[in-house]
Amino acid sequence: HGKEEVLEPSAGVVGRYGFPLTGADIRFYANHTLSYDQARRTPRWVAEHISAEKLYGNADRKRCKFKPDPNIPVLFTARNEDYLGSGWSRGHMTPAGDNKYSEQAMAETFYLSNIVPQNFENNSGFWNRLEMYCRDLTKRFQDVWIISGPLVLPAVGADGKKTISYEVIGKDDVAVPTHLFKVILAQRKGFPSETLALGAFVVPNRPIGFNHPLTEFQVSLTDLERMSGLNFFPKVDRTRVPLKNLCNLDSCRLMSSKEFSLYIATRKIGSAGNVFKLDKAMSELKEAGIAPDEYLLKLYEAKKKEFASKEVPEYQRGH
Amino acid sequence: HGKEEVLEPSAGVVGRYGFPLTGADIRFYANHTLSYDQARRTPRWVAEHISAEKLYGNADRKRCKFKPDPNIPVLFTARNEDYLGSGWSRGHMTPAGDNKYSEQAMAETFYLSNIVPQNFENNSGFWNRLEMYCRDLTKRFQDVWIISGPLVLPAVGADGKKTISYEVIGKDDVAVPTHLFKVILAQRKGFPSETLALGAFVVPNRPIGFNHPLTEFQVSLTDLERMSGLNFFPKVDRTRVPLKNLCNLDSCRLMSSKEFSLYIATRKIGSAGNVFKLDKAMSELKEAGIAPDEYLLKLYEAKKKEFASKEVPEYQRGH
Ligand SMILES: [Mg+2]
Ligand SMILES: [Mg+2]
Repeated sequence: HGKEEVLEPSAGVVGRYGFPLTGADIRFYANHTLSYDQARRTPRWVAEHISAEKLYGNADRKRCKFKPDPNIPVLFTARNEDYLGSGWSRGHMTPAGDNKYSEQAMAETFYLSNIVPQNFENNSGFWNRLEMYCRDLTKRFQDVWIISGPLVLPAVGADGKKTISYEVIGKDDVAVPTHLFKVILAQRKGFPSETLALGAFVVPNRPIGFNHPLTEFQVSLTDLERMSGLNFFPKVDRTRVPLKNLCNLDSCRLMSSKEFSLYIATRKIGSAGNVFKLDKAMSELKEAGIAPDEYLLKLYEAKKKEFASKEVPEYQRGH
Repeated sequence: HGKEEVLEPSAGVVGRYGFPLTGADIRFYANHTLSYDQARRTPRWVAEHISAEKLYGNADRKRCKFKPDPNIPVLFTARNEDYLGSGWSRGHMTPAGDNKYSEQAMAETFYLSNIVPQNFENNSGFWNRLEMYCRDLTKRFQDVWIISGPLVLPAVGADGKKTISYEVIGKDDVAVPTHLFKVILAQRKGFPSETLALGAFVVPNRPIGFNHPLTEFQVSLTDLERMSGLNFFPKVDRTRVPLKNLCNLDSCRLMSSKEFSLYIATRKIGSAGNVFKLDKAMSELKEAGIAPDEYLLKLYEAKKKEFASKEVPEYQRGH
């Protein structure tokens, strides 16, 4: 009855030829969901859900290829050529290894809509160990939701001015984030109510050694929300179930240097295609002064036997 | 019947606690519409429609105040304190002067959701003249749609690397754009079909003198779309009505230095509150070597008479 009726929103006239499309809509994939940033040619955020059963299966990243997401308009997509030779790796936001249960789900994580330019050592090191920790959580929590994405954060100069500065790579000007974030929401069933634990982390996009614990990069959810411009898990009713600090309830402990070397050796031995590669992986481990554990030793013996049984007899070899 | 049915989008599980909210939704105001960037604390784009009748009326910017947009969550809003003393002015995207027909519409343009940190000289100079050109278009086109917004564009360093670098100001880290864009869509009624003309412009956020014509900053719509990540005017059917180049069909000529000085003097004389300010504006113009036009002279004489008639007789003056 008042002012507001006199001048109601005039979307009709202003929007006659349509409002600009930001492409900010949510995009759904087999086991992840994302919002794509058409200006930066990276995701804004990627959401996934993992549970113990999703981590087992025969999907193999060797059968996957990085490729432009066919769902993104060509004008706004990143391409492999942008990354190659750029000095930056193609870093998964939702990890391939979280989707072993499904070839399709894993293949879709290789769409460049799920990828940001990531420091190589960070990708294979610290961030990799953070992803492993997330998978490990499924042993203690039935359901784990993870949201990952890039950030561009300001640095304070000598003059006191704050500046956001980041490289863009390739013909498509793909934005290299200064930091990456991960928000983990872990749920444990229980009576009378379930437990919900949350941890938010902001990790610089550069090499990070074993001397830095994960908790060093923990931030409050509100701080991350301010940095990213995002509101996370809007459907969590914080008045019904209080959100616990994941790093208090669980360990937030990443693999140590020794554990990580053992893990890498175990992977190498598991995928070794011949006896020479098998023995090379084993001797690398010994040179690093790391004792193989029982699992690794059994795997080694089994693979050794397998190769011996397949060995081509002398008289069948070509010359 | 195939693969897609086996693994349909699992939004149900992944989205159990809601997807991150980017706040990218469109926000409607009396005569403008915008998408707000919660991370940068500026609009992404602001759309408006102008016509001759909207430019006339009694709404006055002197009665307006810059203020945080009450519709934006406090965590993501800019505040006046972020701008004050920052070295950057509060630059309207949809201009106050486009909404003289409505107090409310004008007041809403002063919400900080419609504002970006803009170089002072650019704001009062080149960008101001661009806005005037837009208003002038309403003399020759019945309907004009304008979309304005900030951009952060890369610069190439000595090492060949491309870097996007921009200041953020205040406690709220409001992003200072490197450039501003404006897309103008002008429509002239006609038979058998109307005429639609489009011009897209990208202007550096720094002082730009009178020696730079507007056409120097014209870009193709596709180039602007790639830079901004936006698709403009998605409802224009380019197959039905071919889009003409605004700068061919119209002049794209901004006010010259003389015309601009005359305009400023006219405004000063129009708003002068006493005879001294009146004469000061007139003598400034003469010192600049610019001859007043007929309109200005008439305005001057009319104001002079007005002040003379109001003059307080000698014996009534206080001491
Ligand atoms: Mg990775
Ligand atoms: Mg202005």
